[in-house]
Amino acid sequence: MENTIESPVNKKVDEKKPIKKMMLILSKATIDNVYACFILANGARMEGIESEIFFTFFGLEAITKKKLEHLHVATVGNPGMHIPTMLGGLPGMEALATKMMKSEMEKLDIPPVGEFLEILAASGTKLWACKLAMDMFHLDKDKLIDDLDGVLTVGDFYARAQGDGTHLLFI
Amino acid sequence: MENTIESPVNKKVDEKKPIKKMMLILSKATIDNVYACFILANGARMEGIESEIFFTFFGLEAITKKKLEHLHVATVGNPGMHIPTMLGGLPGMEALATKMMKSEMEKLDIPPVGEFLEILAASGTKLWACKLAMDMFHLDKDKLIDDLDGVLTVGDFYARAQGDGTHLLFI
Amino acid sequence: MENTIESPVNKKVDEKKPIKKMMLILSKATIDNVYACFILANGARMEGIESEIFFTFFGLEAITKKKLEHLHVATVGNPGMHIPTMLGGLPGMEALATKMMKSEMEKLDIPPVGEFLEILAASGTKLWACKLAMDMFHLDKDKLIDDLDGVLTVGDFYARAQGDGTHLLFI
Repeated sequence: MENTIESPVNKKVDEKKPIKKMMLILSKATIDNVYACFILANGARMEGIESEIFFTFFGLEAITKKKLEHLHVATVGNPGMHIPTMLGGLPGMEALATKMMKSEMEKLDIPPVGEFLEILAASGTKLWACKLAMDMFHLDKDKLIDDLDGVLTVGDFYARAQGDGTHLLFI
Repeated sequence: MENTIESPVNKKVDEKKPIKKMMLILSKATIDNVYACFILANGARMEGIESEIFFTFFGLEAITKKKLEHLHVATVGNPGMHIPTMLGGLPGMEALATKMMKSEMEKLDIPPVGEFLEILAASGTKLWACKLAMDMFHLDKDKLIDDLDGVLTVGDFYARAQGDGTHLLFI
Repeated sequence: MENTIESPVNKKVDEKKPIKKMMLILSKATIDNVYACFILANGARMEGIESEIFFTFFGLEAITKKKLEHLHVATVGNPGMHIPTMLGGLPGMEALATKMMKSEMEKLDIPPVGEFLEILAASGTKLWACKLAMDMFHLDKDKLIDDLDGVLTVGDFYARAQGDGTHLLFI
């Protein structure tokens, strides 16, 4: 934390309450968003912060057994990929970009999606599926990962997000 | 809430403060993001939580009279749609995916955008347009829905987000 | 603030605690998301709220010297652009949409990305690069803007987000 400038000395006690819980809502299936979510959840656990992920809309794919290892980077419409829009639309370019990103992740010891989910579950991150999104995509629990902690409504999710020091992120 | 594991018994009182207000910033016009936002706002109201939506950038389309019933799902660049990138770019594919999603929504009794906005307004969700984005897109208030509660600057929005138990989400 | 309805009179004191700090996580390189992030950070400073931006994943491009003036609007997969999907994929359309958006921004006195970053730095917004994303994209600090305040891990970022009245947004 060499770059951390903030001095605790000048702060009042009530201002320095640590983060207690991260509640992450994952609504997208693009691999960059999925990894961002998992890294934020994992980083929280490493700091002793509780973390929970609520998989909703397309984010459900990240916990669907048959799909979770086949997520893609969005090449088209994603200027960050450095691929011209027309080229990005060519068959194979999306697969290539996805392969490249997965390869970089592997070099940094970031596990593939399925293994990452196991690590998150083992570290105490709660993994929840959104009931409404499951109904929308006609998914039942046996199609989802075994490590799932359960199915929640939006109301259940809000109830779990109670308490000081809880933060919600929509990814 | 059969899946809710957390026990209130082991928690100190100050940790269980309920969520009081959800402040949602909607910056996108894709129908999946618009519905995610509306469902989070509506779910909050159903739990007795205040909710407000700040429509900014492309999110303004969701409250623009002439556009709100013509929002689309993004098929290209959205791996969640299960449509190959080239096919996703063909005319008609985006319309088809949008029609399919709207049909699923209807089966789950989720109303179309215009009707959903009326329900949100009636349930007490505050609906705000971003002043800067209105200027950017040359929109004036008469082009926006009648249920709009007003036009806010970013500073106004921050002022409304004051108080313990308030959470902000960027969608 | 003519549209602000909430009356402070009916609120208890502890409910009206002002926002103290905005912690913005920028993970995308599309110009609309970058501007949304900068406008939220700048709006915070104008209200006396601390603000910090954590540039991660593709968001790193917004602080990469050689790229920050060449960010694009996503035309394909972005229904908000009013460009048919096929047309959006044509070479030149993305450049045109980007030029139009930049032109509108200029009319509203919103500075280009590089200049906006200087203003943010001068106004006290902390600008942080994500260590993991830098490793993933093989970026070192000399390729990033001079105004950068440093490089943080996710854990460092959480540590800086401590305290009552802090809000995190994922953009």
